[in-house]
Amino acid sequence: MARRSGRRPGDSGTRDSIRAAAGRQFAEQGFDRTSLRSIAAEAEVDPGLVSHFFGSKHKLFVAVVELPFDPATVIPRLFGGDRDAIGTRVAGFLAGVLEDPAARQRMVGLVRAAASEPEAAVMVRERLTRDVFTPMVAQLGVPDADLRASLLASQVVGLVMARYVVAIEPLASLPAPALAAAIAPNLQQYLAGTLTPGPSAG
Amino acid sequence: MARRSGRRPGDSGTRDSIRAAAGRQFAEQGFDRTSLRSIAAEAEVDPGLVSHFFGSKHKLFVAVVELPFDPATVIPRLFGGDRDAIGTRVAGFLAGVLEDPAARQRMVGLVRAAASEPEAAVMVRERLTRDVFTPMVAQLGVPDADLRASLLASQVVGLVMARYVVAIEPLASLPAPALAAAIAPNLQQYLAGTLTPGPSAG
Repeated sequence: MARRSGRRPGDSGTRDSIRAAAGRQFAEQGFDRTSLRSIAAEAEVDPGLVSHFFGSKHKLFVAVVELPFDPATVIPRLFGGDRDAIGTRVAGFLAGVLEDPAARQRMVGLVRAAASEPEAAVMVRERLTRDVFTPMVAQLGVPDADLRASLLASQVVGLVMARYVVAIEPLASLPAPALAAAIAPNLQQYLAGTLTPGPSAG
Repeated sequence: MARRSGRRPGDSGTRDSIRAAAGRQFAEQGFDRTSLRSIAAEAEVDPGLVSHFFGSKHKLFVAVVELPFDPATVIPRLFGGDRDAIGTRVAGFLAGVLEDPAARQRMVGLVRAAASEPEAAVMVRERLTRDVFTPMVAQLGVPDADLRASLLASQVVGLVMARYVVAIEPLASLPAPALAAAIAPNLQQYLAGTLTPGPSAG
C-alpha cells in the first residue's frame, strides 16, 4: 500500500513494476487470490494507478500473462528438420523455455488461472492451441491435426501442473535435459504417431 | 440459505446432501469460489450444520474429494496381464472412469483445487502418486519407478485439465474409446518404455 515518493503516473518504471508484481502474484497465488490492491502493494504504488494503467484485474491478467515466446519465430525453427525427430525438438524447446524463471512464471500463471477462471481457460485454448499447437501440427501434414494439437496441449498443461504447481517428485526437480528426454517420445507420438488402436505388442 | 423444515442435525440425508453440493461446487467453481455458505444454500440447510458436520471448508474438501475408485481393487486387475499392454489397460480404465459423471466430478474437483489450494496440491500428490501411480509402477519391476509415476500423473492431470476444465476441442468431446486409443501408447511409454535419450529415428 506504500506509495513510493517521486513516482508519476506516466512513469514507465511504474508500469513495469506493476506488470512484474502482477505476473508473480498470478503465477504464485492464482487469479482468485490476487487483487489489484495486493499487486499495488507489491509494486509500491497507489491502487488507483493500477486501475489507471490496466483497468480491471481481468484486463491486467490478459496484459501480463502472455506466452513467453513468439510462435511466429519458434514454429518454423522447430519444424525445419525431419518429422521423426519433431518430438525431440519440441521437448527440448519446452524444457528450455521452462528453465527461464520469467518464462516459467508466465506458463504457470496461465495454467493455474485456467483452472479457476473461465476467461483464462479461453486464453489457454487460444494461446496454446490456436496460436501454437494447431499451426505447428498443420505444418506436419498429418491427419487429425486438431486432435493432435489438443492432446499435445494436454501433456504440456499437465507437465506444468505436475512439475511446478503440484510439484510431484522426482519430476519437479528433474534436470531439463532428462525432462526433455522423458517426454520426447510422447510428444512425437501425439505429433506424428498413430492415434487409432493397433494390435497389442504383447 | 433456505433451511428445509423437519431436517435434524443427525439426519444422514442432510450429510449426504451437503456432500453432494460440496462435491459439485468444488468441481465446478473451484476451491476458492466455494464457501460453506454457498454449499449450505445448495443443500438447503443452515450454514451452521455444515460446520457442525464437517468443520472447516478445508476439512469438507478432504471429506468429499476422494478418488472415484479403490486403488486396492483396481491395481491388481490392471496389472494382471502382460506388460506390453499395460498402457492400453490403464488408458481404457481411465477413459471409462471419466465417463461416469460422479467420478469425473471428483477428478475435476481434485485437479482444479490443486491449482489454487496448496493443501489440495498435497492431496493430489498423495492420492494420485503415492496411493495409485507409485504402487502400480512398482509392480512392473521397471527402473525409475518414481519418475514414471510422476510422468504418468502429469499426463492424467493434464488430460483432466485439457478435456474438462479448459475444454480443448476435439479432445473435450472425443468418445471414450478413441480417447483411450489416443493416450494408450503414451501411458505405455511412461509405464514401461525407455526414458533416456536414444538415437533419432530420422
